[in-house]
Amino acid sequence: MDYQAILGQCCEMPVGYVQLPVGVAGPLILDGREYHVPLATTEGCLVASVNRGCRAIAASGGAISVLLRDAMSRAPAVKLPSAKRAAELKAFVEAPANFELLASVFNRCSRFGRLQDIHCALAGRNLYMRFTCITGDAMGMNMVSKGVENVLGYLRNDFPDMDIISISGNYCSDKKPTAVNWIEGRGKSVVCEATIKRDVVQKVLKTTTEKLVELNIIKNLAGSAVAGALGGFNAHASNIVTALFIATGQDPAQNVESSQCITMLETVNDGDDLHISVTMPSIEVGTIGGGTCLASQAACLNLLGVKGSIHDLPGANAQRLATIVAGSVLAGELSLLAALAAGQLVKSHMEYNRSSKDITKAAS
Amino acid sequence: MDYQAILGQCCEMPVGYVQLPVGVAGPLILDGREYHVPLATTEGCLVASVNRGCRAIAASGGAISVLLRDAMSRAPAVKLPSAKRAAELKAFVEAPANFELLASVFNRCSRFGRLQDIHCALAGRNLYMRFTCITGDAMGMNMVSKGVENVLGYLRNDFPDMDIISISGNYCSDKKPTAVNWIEGRGKSVVCEATIKRDVVQKVLKTTTEKLVELNIIKNLAGSAVAGALGGFNAHASNIVTALFIATGQDPAQNVESSQCITMLETVNDGDDLHISVTMPSIEVGTIGGGTCLASQAACLNLLGVKGSIHDLPGANAQRLATIVAGSVLAGELSLLAALAAGQLVKSHMEYNRSSKDITKAAS
Amino acid sequence: MDYQAILGQCCEMPVGYVQLPVGVAGPLILDGREYHVPLATTEGCLVASVNRGCRAIAASGGAISVLLRDAMSRAPAVKLPSAKRAAELKAFVEAPANFELLASVFNRCSRFGRLQDIHCALAGRNLYMRFTCITGDAMGMNMVSKGVENVLGYLRNDFPDMDIISISGNYCSDKKPTAVNWIEGRGKSVVCEATIKRDVVQKVLKTTTEKLVELNIIKNLAGSAVAGALGGFNAHASNIVTALFIATGQDPAQNVESSQCITMLETVNDGDDLHISVTMPSIEVGTIGGGTCLASQAACLNLLGVKGSIHDLPGANAQRLATIVAGSVLAGELSLLAALAAGQLVKSHMEYNRSSKDITKAAS
Amino acid sequence: MDYQAILGQCCEMPVGYVQLPVGVAGPLILDGREYHVPLATTEGCLVASVNRGCRAIAASGGAISVLLRDAMSRAPAVKLPSAKRAAELKAFVEAPANFELLASVFNRCSRFGRLQDIHCALAGRNLYMRFTCITGDAMGMNMVSKGVENVLGYLRNDFPDMDIISISGNYCSDKKPTAVNWIEGRGKSVVCEATIKRDVVQKVLKTTTEKLVELNIIKNLAGSAVAGALGGFNAHASNIVTALFIATGQDPAQNVESSQCITMLETVNDGDDLHISVTMPSIEVGTIGGGTCLASQAACLNLLGVKGSIHDLPGANAQRLATIVAGSVLAGELSLLAALAAGQLVKSHMEYNRSSKDITKAAS
Repeated sequence: MDYQAILGQCCEMPVGYVQLPVGVAGPLILDGREYHVPLATTEGCLVASVNRGCRAIAASGGAISVLLRDAMSRAPAVKLPSAKRAAELKAFVEAPANFELLASVFNRCSRFGRLQDIHCALAGRNLYMRFTCITGDAMGMNMVSKGVENVLGYLRNDFPDMDIISISGNYCSDKKPTAVNWIEGRGKSVVCEATIKRDVVQKVLKTTTEKLVELNIIKNLAGSAVAGALGGFNAHASNIVTALFIATGQDPAQNVESSQCITMLETVNDGDDLHISVTMPSIEVGTIGGGTCLASQAACLNLLGVKGSIHDLPGANAQRLATIVAGSVLAGELSLLAALAAGQLVKSHMEYNRSSKDITKAAS
Repeated sequence: MDYQAILGQCCEMPVGYVQLPVGVAGPLILDGREYHVPLATTEGCLVASVNRGCRAIAASGGAISVLLRDAMSRAPAVKLPSAKRAAELKAFVEAPANFELLASVFNRCSRFGRLQDIHCALAGRNLYMRFTCITGDAMGMNMVSKGVENVLGYLRNDFPDMDIISISGNYCSDKKPTAVNWIEGRGKSVVCEATIKRDVVQKVLKTTTEKLVELNIIKNLAGSAVAGALGGFNAHASNIVTALFIATGQDPAQNVESSQCITMLETVNDGDDLHISVTMPSIEVGTIGGGTCLASQAACLNLLGVKGSIHDLPGANAQRLATIVAGSVLAGELSLLAALAAGQLVKSHMEYNRSSKDITKAAS
Repeated sequence: MDYQAILGQCCEMPVGYVQLPVGVAGPLILDGREYHVPLATTEGCLVASVNRGCRAIAASGGAISVLLRDAMSRAPAVKLPSAKRAAELKAFVEAPANFELLASVFNRCSRFGRLQDIHCALAGRNLYMRFTCITGDAMGMNMVSKGVENVLGYLRNDFPDMDIISISGNYCSDKKPTAVNWIEGRGKSVVCEATIKRDVVQKVLKTTTEKLVELNIIKNLAGSAVAGALGGFNAHASNIVTALFIATGQDPAQNVESSQCITMLETVNDGDDLHISVTMPSIEVGTIGGGTCLASQAACLNLLGVKGSIHDLPGANAQRLATIVAGSVLAGELSLLAALAAGQLVKSHMEYNRSSKDITKAAS
Repeated sequence: MDYQAILGQCCEMPVGYVQLPVGVAGPLILDGREYHVPLATTEGCLVASVNRGCRAIAASGGAISVLLRDAMSRAPAVKLPSAKRAAELKAFVEAPANFELLASVFNRCSRFGRLQDIHCALAGRNLYMRFTCITGDAMGMNMVSKGVENVLGYLRNDFPDMDIISISGNYCSDKKPTAVNWIEGRGKSVVCEATIKRDVVQKVLKTTTEKLVELNIIKNLAGSAVAGALGGFNAHASNIVTALFIATGQDPAQNVESSQCITMLETVNDGDDLHISVTMPSIEVGTIGGGTCLASQAACLNLLGVKGSIHDLPGANAQRLATIVAGSVLAGELSLLAALAAGQLVKSHMEYNRSSKDITKAAS
């Protein structure tokens, strides 16, 4: 056990390691590249299911992803003597005229950190200032926290009556399911899509486009709506996000928001083919720092070709990793939905005593 | 690598293992027992932080937990020809007079599964029936799924016009942040509390009761409220839940709902002491099955004394593990809030150039 | 101005009346009856729009409604010395063995009030006990509040350490958008449906079934999902609920939860016809008490045939009013969705300068 | 009955008027002015309660409000052939470089409408573009809808493959409880505060600062948190918003989001006094158009001194009306919380048979 790699970095009072098996799904054909996706999991069927989804995607020409946004956030809470005064501070930090100045103070936190935006919320005389910042290939929480501290120090000059309650006021929001992440995004926001050919739906996924579309409406849209879901309009995004996060040294506690996802299915090309997409606003990943330094996790990042940083393209690897997360979720959604839709048939013949073991295990 | 332990059980297409360092925090004094809590994490400061929380709790006489509820859920979606007909099915399965019959059909799923309740939601002619069931020491998703299949098969006799859309209709809700879990609970519902003596707050936690109480209101209650949180009224429950889940072979993808938590702090005993509690309605854990069978995870369960089942007390170990999760979250909340509250002082002296490195790293 | 009718009942320090115009839509054919629906509104197009919806429903044979549940709620907040003690109180009031006793204490509140259920939530040592009760033809908030006071008084015998914080602890929830109402229901829970014939869609609604179904998915399901809606999966339920509430003397401040609604549309009968439904879990209405006593409001109730109480059928009028609310919402949803879907055509020809005035006004 | 005032404007198929009694509370001392606040309601105690709150505020020197933001929104839903293409449209409309151009197209809608921002959300290949716009003294929905139509028409040149699904895609969000309004605001965002002197709390409100602060935490923060509230962290904002909306000719169906409010209470001045604030992000009001033209509603606006427009200050009246809404809510919250807190005493003496009638009626 290499204690040097973890002490002072990843874990205190270490007594050993826990091992999670890693399976590889794929190749996932995404944006013209081939990825072999490492998934660390102890849930039976998960790797096989994602693998089947990858096969369906590959047989249909691959998936396409778009990075919509890239910015980590941190929102300190400060208290002013009055709501009026809190509103003045809000106006100050949100004023376009002050942005360049505040950014110059903020950006001293790191070579890579670049302030993108400050969005504030008030609760009376308490002000929550949500700073967002690009963070290169790091997940970026430490970077943005340092930048926030710089700005808080600076603001005390003009607002000496500002009482800093906490460097994090939960409007960030880290590791909590919140609407602000769902609406504004946190980390990388990605959409990923594929068009699955009708015969692939039948032969690989063993179901029909019509059944899949209906299932998605009743389960992922209406079902989640009646359940009062917040950003949980999907079948099992969390499974894939978590397994890929653990394999590649990400912080799996962040899957709470990183797995926020809306899955959409519809028929296209005159009803012949299936269009599927996943939209994920809050994927928090990095390819340097944290658990990415450990040997097995680094190996998984290398398998994906996104370890560390590309010299001239800071942030490119982390962004690519985020698209791989979304692509893998796409594959996972496709396959589980197909298993559930096919289960519908199984159920209708349940009186004939067919086994429904696989369906049971796969359901989420 | 012991492929036999994982093939057909935990992971397909395995290529190896990923290793996560395990640190041990504690002893956590909970309900009169001592626990050494294994946490698998790569986030620096986490184990040390939980450890400090445990120390404060121990110095104050320990924490107390109560299990409020124990029932895993699965909610299939079925479609009827009309909303009227869906309402009839709802009335049928919710009728007290039919419960014993449906339970007898459901309970064939397992020696341990015992149906507790059926709670339905409608969206037009689609019906979501949320079955809840005690599941012994297993986390219980497979068990409840089998029971649900039994009941669906049975219901088709009286409701031949029932079209089974999916064994899971997302009203369960598994691995999605939903209100139904927050309101009704899923898995184990636990509340855990401790009263921390004033001098322990000062000496161990390096802050004051007043600052902690104010911080909790502004960050965990109001901050999360303005962020639009759903069950995320805490500082970093997800960190502890995830680390303990990975260490003990639980499904870390379930931390989405298992880390739902409201943390409450207030002064008691005429302002002398601090009362802290965490209320967590959806802790999904088991001590048999899944990842609990792997060697290192089993060792962590043994460290806690909750591996497997106690012969005459089925479910007791899993219930105890749930209380340990809540107790560890209590320790983690206490310590991080203290670090943030103390940081307030640091910030107010920021012009004197003091290091605030630790605060930055610890913030969530 | 009849001051006697309002003083000590409806309004203090009265200076006069405000007048809202009432339009009548219909007839709404619902459950085999004909209703002329009074809507008090100042929003142009609203009455006309609901009227058109009624016409489409009537031409298709009418709508059907089902009352799923009828129970008003009130949830006091009490504080106990410890969470353990709060859990004991929770266990006591939720125990089936104690229900009859607690109901007998509760039911002294009124001839009509009958306790249905007590469902509790904890936040540490604070307990929120949600009492639900049938309330005859009254909306029932006062009745349930009195019943709750009875029970609180009784509980103090066994739990003298119970500190009553508030007769309402917001877990009721009155006039706030909350998940507990959406999941558990408040007042009357109603589902209402109709099957609109293909030619009626074309001739009356000027659009196609396919367009309506697609619009509902993209706007009412996915659009509300990305907006982070809580029970707001509809086009404009609040418009109809509010207008009908004001006309019939209900409390329009309760439309916050009374207008929670999920609207579902799909093709049926081999794609020939359109099935539409609205599911509304929290319709809070009464036909006695409050504003129902005022002359113009009473006239509107009489127009609907639901004024006051039927001697042998207490609650029947209020329940019927709730179904009329749902039926009117059904008509309103149908018509606005049709206007929006037809607008799609308008938009595609916008370069030809066609007027889109009506669409603009109708949009919600 | 003046049919000319309503036909073609407010109501079709009119059969008459419904009358709601108007009581006047106040004077409300707000920002140095005195307001007599008209409330149209049939809920007993409401006017008296707000009046008492006004008295406590006046005795403490008045309340202060700040307008944080002023912008009405409308979000059409459009569909593109692919998510990639939808992302391109999103990038186009959000690009700072294109803002001036799009604003010039948008602003043709009206003399007063000025585009402020375009914020987009994706669900696969569906794009929701949330346009926000200042709208002078009009509530502004029609204005912003026209501006949106202008822009949609323009965008079709560059994006001929854009399919307009609906002028409203529910991401606006109008008359639905959604997070996007809570986070981003809709209409006017206002914070209002007052510091109530200790002896005023005792003499006018008949309770203590400590009790009020504790009640607010347990009811409005923690109680709403466990209820899964979305923007409903208050006691009864909806009551006051609705009554003031109806009196002044606003659209009461919009109280769903206009009553989103977080109420904060804390002790200040070394525990001597009470600081109370309400933060309301989505107050949708106008002083021209809609129901403001009707005689009685116009009289109420005149009573407040905000009827119509001030020639050189377009928007000033509507903004002032929004602050009056917030100030009245502040008064209402203060008074009801005091009644509930005092009820605590009543309850503790319930065995002495004191009447608690008023408390019961006032509770929300």
